Amino acid sequence: MLKVAVVGATGYTGEELVKILASHSKVKITSLTAKIDKPQKIQELFPSLMGRINMVCELPNEEKVAKAADLIFLALPHRVSMEVSPKFLKKKKRVIDLSADYRLPKGIYKKWYSAVHKDSAGLNIAVYGLPELNREKIKTARLIANPGCYPTSILLGLAPLFKNNIADASLLIADSKTGITGAGRRPDISLSFAEVSGNLKAYKVHSHQHSPEIDQVLSKLAKREISAVFVPHLIPMNRGILSTIYVRVKKPINTAKVIELYKAAYAKEPFVKVLSEGSFPQIKDVTGTNFCYLGIKVDTKKGLCIIVSAIDNLTKGAAGQAVQNMNIMYGFNEKEGLCL
Amino acid sequence: MLKVAVVGATGYTGEELVKILASHSKVKITSLTAKIDKPQKIQELFPSLMGRINMVCELPNEEKVAKAADLIFLALPHRVSMEVSPKFLKKKKRVIDLSADYRLPKGIYKKWYSAVHKDSAGLNIAVYGLPELNREKIKTARLIANPGCYPTSILLGLAPLFKNNIADASLLIADSKTGITGAGRRPDISLSFAEVSGNLKAYKVHSHQHSPEIDQVLSKLAKREISAVFVPHLIPMNRGILSTIYVRVKKPINTAKVIELYKAAYAKEPFVKVLSEGSFPQIKDVTGTNFCYLGIKVDTKKGLCIIVSAIDNLTKGAAGQAVQNMNIMYGFNEKEGLCL
Amino acid sequence: MLKVAVVGATGYTGEELVKILASHSKVKITSLTAKIDKPQKIQELFPSLMGRINMVCELPNEEKVAKAADLIFLALPHRVSMEVSPKFLKKKKRVIDLSADYRLPKGIYKKWYSAVHKDSAGLNIAVYGLPELNREKIKTARLIANPGCYPTSILLGLAPLFKNNIADASLLIADSKTGITGAGRRPDISLSFAEVSGNLKAYKVHSHQHSPEIDQVLSKLAKREISAVFVPHLIPMNRGILSTIYVRVKKPINTAKVIELYKAAYAKEPFVKVLSEGSFPQIKDVTGTNFCYLGIKVDTKKGLCIIVSAIDNLTKGAAGQAVQNMNIMYGFNEKEGLCL
Amino acid sequence: MLKVAVVGATGYTGEELVKILASHSKVKITSLTAKIDKPQKIQELFPSLMGRINMVCELPNEEKVAKAADLIFLALPHRVSMEVSPKFLKKKKRVIDLSADYRLPKGIYKKWYSAVHKDSAGLNIAVYGLPELNREKIKTARLIANPGCYPTSILLGLAPLFKNNIADASLLIADSKTGITGAGRRPDISLSFAEVSGNLKAYKVHSHQHSPEIDQVLSKLAKREISAVFVPHLIPMNRGILSTIYVRVKKPINTAKVIELYKAAYAKEPFVKVLSEGSFPQIKDVTGTNFCYLGIKVDTKKGLCIIVSAIDNLTKGAAGQAVQNMNIMYGFNEKEGLCL
Repeated sequence: MLKVAVVGATGYTGEELVKILASHSKVKITSLTAKIDKPQKIQELFPSLMGRINMVCELPNEEKVAKAADLIFLALPHRVSMEVSPKFLKKKKRVIDLSADYRLPKGIYKKWYSAVHKDSAGLNIAVYGLPELNREKIKTARLIANPGCYPTSILLGLAPLFKNNIADASLLIADSKTGITGAGRRPDISLSFAEVSGNLKAYKVHSHQHSPEIDQVLSKLAKREISAVFVPHLIPMNRGILSTIYVRVKKPINTAKVIELYKAAYAKEPFVKVLSEGSFPQIKDVTGTNFCYLGIKVDTKKGLCIIVSAIDNLTKGAAGQAVQNMNIMYGFNEKEGLCL
Repeated sequence: MLKVAVVGATGYTGEELVKILASHSKVKITSLTAKIDKPQKIQELFPSLMGRINMVCELPNEEKVAKAADLIFLALPHRVSMEVSPKFLKKKKRVIDLSADYRLPKGIYKKWYSAVHKDSAGLNIAVYGLPELNREKIKTARLIANPGCYPTSILLGLAPLFKNNIADASLLIADSKTGITGAGRRPDISLSFAEVSGNLKAYKVHSHQHSPEIDQVLSKLAKREISAVFVPHLIPMNRGILSTIYVRVKKPINTAKVIELYKAAYAKEPFVKVLSEGSFPQIKDVTGTNFCYLGIKVDTKKGLCIIVSAIDNLTKGAAGQAVQNMNIMYGFNEKEGLCL
Repeated sequence: MLKVAVVGATGYTGEELVKILASHSKVKITSLTAKIDKPQKIQELFPSLMGRINMVCELPNEEKVAKAADLIFLALPHRVSMEVSPKFLKKKKRVIDLSADYRLPKGIYKKWYSAVHKDSAGLNIAVYGLPELNREKIKTARLIANPGCYPTSILLGLAPLFKNNIADASLLIADSKTGITGAGRRPDISLSFAEVSGNLKAYKVHSHQHSPEIDQVLSKLAKREISAVFVPHLIPMNRGILSTIYVRVKKPINTAKVIELYKAAYAKEPFVKVLSEGSFPQIKDVTGTNFCYLGIKVDTKKGLCIIVSAIDNLTKGAAGQAVQNMNIMYGFNEKEGLCL
Repeated sequence: MLKVAVVGATGYTGEELVKILASHSKVKITSLTAKIDKPQKIQELFPSLMGRINMVCELPNEEKVAKAADLIFLALPHRVSMEVSPKFLKKKKRVIDLSADYRLPKGIYKKWYSAVHKDSAGLNIAVYGLPELNREKIKTARLIANPGCYPTSILLGLAPLFKNNIADASLLIADSKTGITGAGRRPDISLSFAEVSGNLKAYKVHSHQHSPEIDQVLSKLAKREISAVFVPHLIPMNRGILSTIYVRVKKPINTAKVIELYKAAYAKEPFVKVLSEGSFPQIKDVTGTNFCYLGIKVDTKKGLCIIVSAIDNLTKGAAGQAVQNMNIMYGFNEKEGLCL
């Protein structure tokens, strides 16, 4: 059994991670920690864990955590992960970091996260943990930068188009809609039920910190600099991201052909499902699962491809993808723990 | 035009009060104040007010408020109202207080609100502002203690039974369900959409601070000491209180007879509607209105009467009732401003 | 007092129309009709109307309706309006039709609504009732084609750009999000709470029947053929449409300049509000009001303008706009009945 | 591997049942059937099943179903189950019926379900499948009458009081609140999002068909006739039942003592959790689980015990309990398949 720890177990992502790991047949959770007032049973903090786990969530103590675990999941806020991660890497532990701290080069990180990056060594070895693009590198990675939720939904929606050199990025817009858990677990009037219920808004319009992450990966795929327009919206629901992506195509191609291409690209992927022509995904298709569902339509006259991509922000967009990465790193069945 | 001010204009109750007063044909709002960082246009704080009012919400300044207004609405937290109210009363202004500060005698107040009451003079002259029970006294009141939301829903549901000496309070249970705005406008994880949505809970089980208010009024009606069992529940909706009330009846009486009695009791009331046999109210019946809807069923074999009472917690349960009280105090049409 | 009738009073739009008209100081509702099983008091069908109106909703009877009213609102499904409208026009009544029946030329209508149009005479005299574009023609119109909810939100968001010849329609995408009342009041599993709650989906992707309506008006403004990409989404909330619009601009222009241009264009409009740079609207800004709020951002490097437009689909998107049209037709204050 | 079939797989209960059975390590699903237009992959009907199962849901065919399965789950409407169940029993199959058809004696059934019961043989051998009360009989049962959702929540909340002869049923009230899935999967305006969202209502006030089921079991426990007052309410959430139960106690007893008694009664139960004094359950504690959470408070002065009981209506209130019964019938670990 692989011994794993979750550092930062009391956010929505942490809760989901513990839920998945507790049912995973190949791992043993050796410690859970979080910045809480005092140690507390995790199943009392999150009653949804009752009957799945019986374990105390301790205060942060990297020394102790490292002793008991071989793989550490960091479900910490950005800027905090880069302080903690080096301590585990030095002790030859492997790390899956769910924050944004290891996804971007120093200069871009500073610009978007308003902080100087403190762990160059980590940055140098970090592998961007999107299995559908990086599976080989993930296998041997010591530090995984687990992708952001929006980038996951958008990149899976666009990768085949860019890989096949069909996308014309001069028109590339991602209009994303996310559930409230995406905003984290914290006291804030703007997140309160009375404000969110019956409401809907765009936020950080074309200025969200996930933008450079999206652009960086697309640029690598396209082998030229790509810059997408990305506008996120907050929706009165708990879980899920639906991204509606508009992209120009370089040459005449129709819906059937693009779907064929996507089906081929994702044929062996356990968690990406390309829908038939005329079908588009809804959030319920993926809630609580690690799946990404894709629906595609091309306007041949305009040369415009519309892709609708749905994931659950807490699973494929965070905790589920982290476990998928773990499964790849340790040679487990990639679906282990993720189809329950 | 009556000149009115709202002190504490930035809570949910304050917002509702401003909305109603702005459309009221007999009043002019002379000032709005609240403990905010800096003065701000109220219609920018609450866009629902756009087009109805164009006015700056100022920082608290009783001197200035008193100069400009004849009637002051206090939409303040309890414990704060009793500090502010005397300043207006001294200047011969009339006050409608929406907090709990003037609803209970000193001793009981201290027990339930953990604070020594500081305004005996105010307490002595305060009139409990439930129009259906106290209309005559309200007319000449200088200080109105506007009722709590739960007590309003429960007392209107029970008054005719107690007035007619039919209720046997040895079995008297009020199971109430409230929308989230009842918890106020404040940052709190337990009020966040992610926690409240899809959730439901009982809270302050048989220990809510509205209990003594309910008991006090029922005791007066019954002319003996009454003590109800009151359990409130938090519901994933924004507005509304539905109270399901179970009370034993002293003598054989059937549903039709009790409904007749209620219809008679409320025949002249503009805001209480007694439904026909077999019909029960839902929250949508009263949302955004100042109405209280009542549905009644008697189990003659058990001698048990079930009353379902629905109000909107922000209108009949707070701001609407405050305006109804104002209408009575100044001889306006009682429905003025409340049927829009 | 203007005598008005509402034909089709029992849908969500009908309910909203009756609510507004009942509080309107210049009109008298002379009849309400709908295809219901038997005549029923409208305030019992829609308790939100209690205290505002006391009137029976009758079965359809155009003869009787026409006798009592001078202006008839048709809140009917498309294909039904064109059967009913001529009967009123023949009797020299004025008609405001809230369906799609008089918005499009015959050929296009047939293509998108799968029906042959039966009222050429009506089509010839119909005026598209978007006051911000057509106020003069509305004044004397005998038949108003009240705009669709999506087109209203999108056209108000784009008109100044097209009027000023700044928009480059080669990239023109409207990604709209609507509340559930937009789907009408009917029994359908896909509209049930259990399916909609916690869910979100795109539908009629780039094939919605409001597309030709949007294109037609933009083409007129631009004086050349415009074809927008329009993708609507269904959101788990009751009311509201938020459209996020992406459009290329022809010449270098920055956010401040575009906002200035919009503020100038809408300076005299009572119901359009252009937000300051950096601010974007949310649905709560407009819920229950007849306002359209607009937020704007330009990416000068990309030459792309992003416009976020928010309206309430039942007011500015339907009933409110119909009343605004009536106010213009009869010379009432344009805001009358719409700022309550 | 036990071969099981689900008849009626396309309701909310059927979906949940398939989800649980698909992950159960001791069973193999041999067929799924439902009254649908044509055979369809169940994971396409319910995308939440994607990756868990790959199976066609067939049209009803008892012959075929019986051949392939040893245990048949009936997730059918009441009145339909009693037509189907005998066919399987005759073939020596075991049956777990999730409808109400085998829970009540003929006379009472007729009164509450307006139908003559057609399967006396079945009624004679049916065992009421509430494991906490009937575990021994369930082990050998051929036909399980799986309890109703409301009765499960109320009976688990009351059983220890009645078993220990502490309850005085002269005051016995259960005020229950249920999520919308409890109303089934069907097109109905009153279940639509636009009607349910922001709404709340009591329904079938003290006249719900689950009343006789509750009374029957309590009467057996008490060894005298018991008749509870039961009022259900519909809440704008998807899953869960919270029952707030008020019952008089015969002798002086305090909260601590009653909690002790409940903890003892449920000490060995895998799915009932009694909370500590001062704590009360919320729906989130049990959503998606097979647990029942209980919170208790006694007013010693009034001699009144308040019990708050929370379950998920689709798991412990239906599908989960059915699987728990299967586990008992076949000697599997009782938690198998139910802690994921």
